[in-house]
Amino acid sequence: MNYIEGGVCAPKGFTAAGMHVGIRANKEKNDLMVIFSMHPCSSAGIFTKNIVCSGPVKLNRKNIIAGNACAFIANSGIANACCPNCNENALRMQHAAAQALKIENEQVLVASTGIIGVRLPVEKIENNISELVSRLENSAEGSNEAALAIMTTDTRKKEFAISGEISGKTVTIGGIAKGSGMIHPNMGTMLCFLTTDCLISASMLDKALRNVCDVTFNRISVDGDTSTNDSMMILANGLACNNFITEENDDFILFESMLRDLCTRIARAMAADGEGAKHLITCTVLNSSSEQKASHIAKSIISSNLTKTAIFGCDANWGRVLCAMGYSGEKFNPDAVDIYFRSDIGTIKVCENGIGVNFDETLAKEILLRPEIEILANINEGKYSATCWGCDMTYDYISINGDYRT
Amino acid sequence: MNYIEGGVCAPKGFTAAGMHVGIRANKEKNDLMVIFSMHPCSSAGIFTKNIVCSGPVKLNRKNIIAGNACAFIANSGIANACCPNCNENALRMQHAAAQALKIENEQVLVASTGIIGVRLPVEKIENNISELVSRLENSAEGSNEAALAIMTTDTRKKEFAISGEISGKTVTIGGIAKGSGMIHPNMGTMLCFLTTDCLISASMLDKALRNVCDVTFNRISVDGDTSTNDSMMILANGLACNNFITEENDDFILFESMLRDLCTRIARAMAADGEGAKHLITCTVLNSSSEQKASHIAKSIISSNLTKTAIFGCDANWGRVLCAMGYSGEKFNPDAVDIYFRSDIGTIKVCENGIGVNFDETLAKEILLRPEIEILANINEGKYSATCWGCDMTYDYISINGDYRT
Repeated sequence: MNYIEGGVCAPKGFTAAGMHVGIRANKEKNDLMVIFSMHPCSSAGIFTKNIVCSGPVKLNRKNIIAGNACAFIANSGIANACCPNCNENALRMQHAAAQALKIENEQVLVASTGIIGVRLPVEKIENNISELVSRLENSAEGSNEAALAIMTTDTRKKEFAISGEISGKTVTIGGIAKGSGMIHPNMGTMLCFLTTDCLISASMLDKALRNVCDVTFNRISVDGDTSTNDSMMILANGLACNNFITEENDDFILFESMLRDLCTRIARAMAADGEGAKHLITCTVLNSSSEQKASHIAKSIISSNLTKTAIFGCDANWGRVLCAMGYSGEKFNPDAVDIYFRSDIGTIKVCENGIGVNFDETLAKEILLRPEIEILANINEGKYSATCWGCDMTYDYISINGDYRT
Repeated sequence: MNYIEGGVCAPKGFTAAGMHVGIRANKEKNDLMVIFSMHPCSSAGIFTKNIVCSGPVKLNRKNIIAGNACAFIANSGIANACCPNCNENALRMQHAAAQALKIENEQVLVASTGIIGVRLPVEKIENNISELVSRLENSAEGSNEAALAIMTTDTRKKEFAISGEISGKTVTIGGIAKGSGMIHPNMGTMLCFLTTDCLISASMLDKALRNVCDVTFNRISVDGDTSTNDSMMILANGLACNNFITEENDDFILFESMLRDLCTRIARAMAADGEGAKHLITCTVLNSSSEQKASHIAKSIISSNLTKTAIFGCDANWGRVLCAMGYSGEKFNPDAVDIYFRSDIGTIKVCENGIGVNFDETLAKEILLRPEIEILANINEGKYSATCWGCDMTYDYISINGDYRT
């Protein structure tokens, strides 16, 4: 397996394009994108558990069942949630794309991201869809334009691709995604579009997507707010011509592990680019009696505002880590917990058996000054571990969100 | 019922004192306090649900069962949690106070607040306890010194008293408390000490305390972090000579409503003085099918970082409010929700039937510029409502917590 260039256009047969159509004020910024496979696809998707959800999410929930979508259309700037006609506008977006691509409405998956409660100017999409579709190309540039079109407060593009061999054939998976606030996924995350040329049935694709989502996007948090628009969707056109995957065999396991690697990378990038973030925090809980317990405790740590501000201040305040573990809702023995902080320049033990140890504060500060920090919590009760990702909480988080609408 | 001066010394027979004994570096700041009733008391207490908890919390859990405590001792500066000898040091603190007050160890309830994981210099308490006890007085000044001694990042003292008539006698309840970070109580809150001269059995006192805690301290959040030291305790010495309250009769209801009023005032003060707060946010969910559901939804709103930063920016971003309602875990119909923002200068409807309405942005800004903001969410499904209190999230929250230990 290795990472390659090309994003969602890295797998065979996928084209992509992005452009500015006027949903956002800034003309320099793409705000609409399409990703398309002319070849038929298996498809699967996972959506927000927030009961307040966008028009596109409601529409996709119906269409995803057929498992034969082959196109994504998405805009940024306006979330198309909690506004008049949001269901109708999601349908119009879908219909416009279907007409331009000459496919059925039901084969188009729709997504929106941006401000909640504002009407989507869907006519701008309808007026420009032909132009956008004419720009579709199977190239790194096509994927790049699409990736740019879904960014909101993201400072960095999230675009990755991975390839590996399955039953003697090269299989590739590509993905683009956007963060970077209202990130506490309880299903997929804000928006993530995946493509693959793997030959795989819709039900196996769905299974792989759910397994991977649980250990990647469901393990990150920027601010504890689960969005109304979370969507993670995948199209698989089968052009890799590998043996058709229709059961949980070795090929399935290989495909799932590729998908997991790719989504881990995207999820980490999302956490690292959390609104205002200066540090990526990777938190691993070790030696738990179950993986689920380990992941709940780790998620509680990375979601704690007090832990997040301490990391911003490069302060080895492990008491806040232990405190956040304690209110995770999971049972463990506090007197058996060891805590370490680490980064690329070293590791320091700060707590042993639930009690602070004397440690070199200067070294601790140096470790925490690095952009990628790890918190290790060993609960010494079993053999399972789990990792979650988050980011620090900074002045910039406040300034970004103190006046987002204006 | 009316509010009076005197704090914990307002009820008959209670003395209090506070002084600096050297636990904190700043010599101007009291760091140890005692509250005492020479007359026997009924007592009750509620403590953090965090499974990582301080030495004092563990000790009080044992002693509270007898229901005959008559003294509080508490220090600020160090939490006496997750450090070597924290259980032993809580015992030593209790013993020192008992000796100086000439009562049994088990009659002293102990509390600490401050940094987690640092050893408590208990000998400073032992060396100064006689001096502190000699300063005990039944006066507003005694309560004031005690209230000052438990403050940490609080900018304002929390000290209130209420009096009313029960079975023809004047009954008074006094309280002091401290916030102002790691506030997301799941039981009592950080520290709250209550005194009353009401004649009431320990079991009825416990019942009133639990009922009141559920609708006051368990309904505030500053930062979503439940502390290791949360404690809410009450002593009742019976000097009001009202009819002995031993069952849920009218007198009990009267006492509970007094306690509720007082604790609501303390809880509001705690939320308003949340770390870095510029706005007190009162959130009421109206017309729910149950009170519990209403309180869960309201708590989800006031705990949302995105709602909190929007209020800091005086931005009427109701989409974040609806979004936070949606991930509260409670079921309701999003298409039936109306949302209003209000303050002392007016009320504005921003969302109707789950959809944004056109509103006067200038008026909205003016409303949100006021120090006390109300968010009303009507879910139009029943007859129950609930109120929670929180605060906005500001640059100061980050600066206070970015480097708390140093």
